[in-house]
Amino acid sequence: MLNKEKLTQKYGNYTGYEILSYCDHTILKQDAKWEDVKRICDEGMMGKTASVCISPSYVKQAFEYTENKLPICTVVGFPNGYMTTKTKAFETADAVKNGAREIDMVINIGHLKNKKYDELLDDIKAVKEACSGKLLKVIIETCLLTDDEKRKMCEIVINGGAEYIKTSTGFSTNGATLHDAKLMVDECQGKIKVKAAGGIKTIDDAVNYLDIGVSRLGTSSLIKLFG
Amino acid sequence: MLNKEKLTQKYGNYTGYEILSYCDHTILKQDAKWEDVKRICDEGMMGKTASVCISPSYVKQAFEYTENKLPICTVVGFPNGYMTTKTKAFETADAVKNGAREIDMVINIGHLKNKKYDELLDDIKAVKEACSGKLLKVIIETCLLTDDEKRKMCEIVINGGAEYIKTSTGFSTNGATLHDAKLMVDECQGKIKVKAAGGIKTIDDAVNYLDIGVSRLGTSSLIKLFG
Repeated sequence: MLNKEKLTQKYGNYTGYEILSYCDHTILKQDAKWEDVKRICDEGMMGKTASVCISPSYVKQAFEYTENKLPICTVVGFPNGYMTTKTKAFETADAVKNGAREIDMVINIGHLKNKKYDELLDDIKAVKEACSGKLLKVIIETCLLTDDEKRKMCEIVINGGAEYIKTSTGFSTNGATLHDAKLMVDECQGKIKVKAAGGIKTIDDAVNYLDIGVSRLGTSSLIKLFG
Repeated sequence: MLNKEKLTQKYGNYTGYEILSYCDHTILKQDAKWEDVKRICDEGMMGKTASVCISPSYVKQAFEYTENKLPICTVVGFPNGYMTTKTKAFETADAVKNGAREIDMVINIGHLKNKKYDELLDDIKAVKEACSGKLLKVIIETCLLTDDEKRKMCEIVINGGAEYIKTSTGFSTNGATLHDAKLMVDECQGKIKVKAAGGIKTIDDAVNYLDIGVSRLGTSSLIKLFG
């Protein structure tokens, strides 16, 4: 249960409700049971989060369960990003067919390290096309990239037609940092939005990311703090 | 370069060459560059490993590079296993088309935790069909399972028509253990073979797994010990 007092209270410039409206309420554990995913859906509907972010094989069931009361977000090419472009596009179309309204894909990090920028761009464009108008966020896994590579990825994600660039999967060596999020906000200049994910655990974390211009927060635990 | 003396020497019951003949020489880092994958292919060909195990997006290039001199193995639904069955089957067919001769798929661990055994079986069968006769190994991610669940998975993987059951992805909380490998060898009673992967780092490790009846070893580092 969520606590109305905590939700209407101000934290920096934002009420609790406002903070939750920026959150993709997330469960991506490999061994998540349906009852775990169902709980995330219930919490997401109660807290009016931006979406719930769940694994592809739960999309259909969650879509039916939530009856369009909140957007279902899922992940593609996740978390390692090295599936072929064809597989990522297929996975995206399949997710959209099952009810996903938002897709968080992972770039092919090998392509970036090989400096194969055209392949990187084509990978994103193919997934965007398979989205059929649904919202696309592109995860660049900042913890494995240099600052120059992060900046290059901002350019490529903008050209790929995605709506968001996202810091992290939460499955690699580190999650979001304020440094990386700021770099991405600055580099994207409002052309696309920025999602920070991985390790966002406190209300202060959330406020700090929102203050620097981040538009979405991927988090599993934040909602509990309003309970 | 491999050292011929070390390769012909005996370690327990096996020569170095024999040990390598059981190895899937593996590189599955998210940020692996082509030069890393190429090196793995060169080493695999020199050491006559059972295969090289690489990410899907490198299969075509590695297949062309190795000119059929060693089997290319790749991963499907990896490492989290929670892609839809349709996506796993598509990814498998795509990998086979690109030159993969062996497929290491990950089960849907959520299905197992939900006790949805029919869905688990259908997932494996669909991938096996998409293999078009190529060899299938099924990763059950032992570190997330109880011993009862591991035994149940032996039964399901046998019924699914796979050739191997495999312990681990190397991306979760733990890799293979002798306990788990032994349990799987005992439970499968020779109906399918067992592959151990994750954390196999020394020649003693390899010998210990082979001695208990394991038929394949997934390892990134073993070949270096014969250099």
